[in-house]
Amino acid sequence: MVSERFEKQLRFLVEADKMKNVQRQTLIADGSRQETDAEHSWHFALMAMTLFDHAREKDKIDLDRVIRMALVHDLVEVYAGDTFCYDEAANLDKADRERAAADRLFGLLPEEQGREYRALWEEFDEKSTPDAAYAAAIDRLQPLINNHLTGSHTWKKGSVKAEQVKKRIEPVREAMDDEVYTFSNWIIGEGIRQGILK
Amino acid sequence: MVSERFEKQLRFLVEADKMKNVQRQTLIADGSRQETDAEHSWHFALMAMTLFDHAREKDKIDLDRVIRMALVHDLVEVYAGDTFCYDEAANLDKADRERAAADRLFGLLPEEQGREYRALWEEFDEKSTPDAAYAAAIDRLQPLINNHLTGSHTWKKGSVKAEQVKKRIEPVREAMDDEVYTFSNWIIGEGIRQGILK
Repeated sequence: MVSERFEKQLRFLVEADKMKNVQRQTLIADGSRQETDAEHSWHFALMAMTLFDHAREKDKIDLDRVIRMALVHDLVEVYAGDTFCYDEAANLDKADRERAAADRLFGLLPEEQGREYRALWEEFDEKSTPDAAYAAAIDRLQPLINNHLTGSHTWKKGSVKAEQVKKRIEPVREAMDDEVYTFSNWIIGEGIRQGILK
Repeated sequence: MVSERFEKQLRFLVEADKMKNVQRQTLIADGSRQETDAEHSWHFALMAMTLFDHAREKDKIDLDRVIRMALVHDLVEVYAGDTFCYDEAANLDKADRERAAADRLFGLLPEEQGREYRALWEEFDEKSTPDAAYAAAIDRLQPLINNHLTGSHTWKKGSVKAEQVKKRIEPVREAMDDEVYTFSNWIIGEGIRQGILK
């Protein structure tokens, strides 16, 4: 009834719906429940749009590419699951799990679209272009803020150390202006003052 | 500690988190719960990206503007709530409620950003440009597909008539190619055959 191309696109879009079932460590701002990957991806995209004037390398960044990156950056988690960033054991095989998931998920699409989405995801993952560096900064900033709004829920849960969080927000220091980095550091300072971050 | 501009942006982004609390009528594809506005907005943006080759007026559409439109199109619902499209009474004052919500929400942002987001939302709402017409089509298609995947949950709940759904998917006929429109009509036909749509 439908062309092979349209059928592939539909199958991919239906499979992508599973992003609404992937629970992240981060809570939504009112603290009532974990946020889903789909919600995070939307908030990430909106935040990239809203805070763009704080990007250090604005002139080298294509914001629309960053937004598309935000939309696809966590898609592999529909198969690979969300890996808690402070769980060192789970992070050992993360790359392999995500690569296998990418083969499976992007393979559902018509070939040139699968290649396009996969390339965006790989670029995000490698963080080596100005677009990806800015995307990485926003991807770290969004949960940092939500964590702060929800009594440092994630840090308490994982017995996280200040050093780990500082390393985690490196992309904010690299890609965002001083104001945003200072603010991020202030959040970490609050975690230390309250005795939550070790 | 932070500039007035950054503070405004942060306040807006935290308020926008409430999109994760706005429940839509539509269920997520596995039928386990209602989807949130944040999830719908992400799925809409990804679908606009994926089905772009089916847009009737591709040459006149700026896909990146459509994606930004998707990200902001439902923001007013953090105050105005989700209005069930087949609830005629609730739709009577929908425009007024949403305008008041837009004043309040977009007013949180630095002025030129508030104007930019509001203009995108108004353009989406008026559906009078090729970008907005394509956005409207995808905004209708996403819940149509999820409704089909979840046993026509929304139609059963609202005792919906086939005529209402046909009117509802007018934007798909206008903005998408024949294949997508035929597919949408097939979904409605299934609803009629199963005696769900009156």
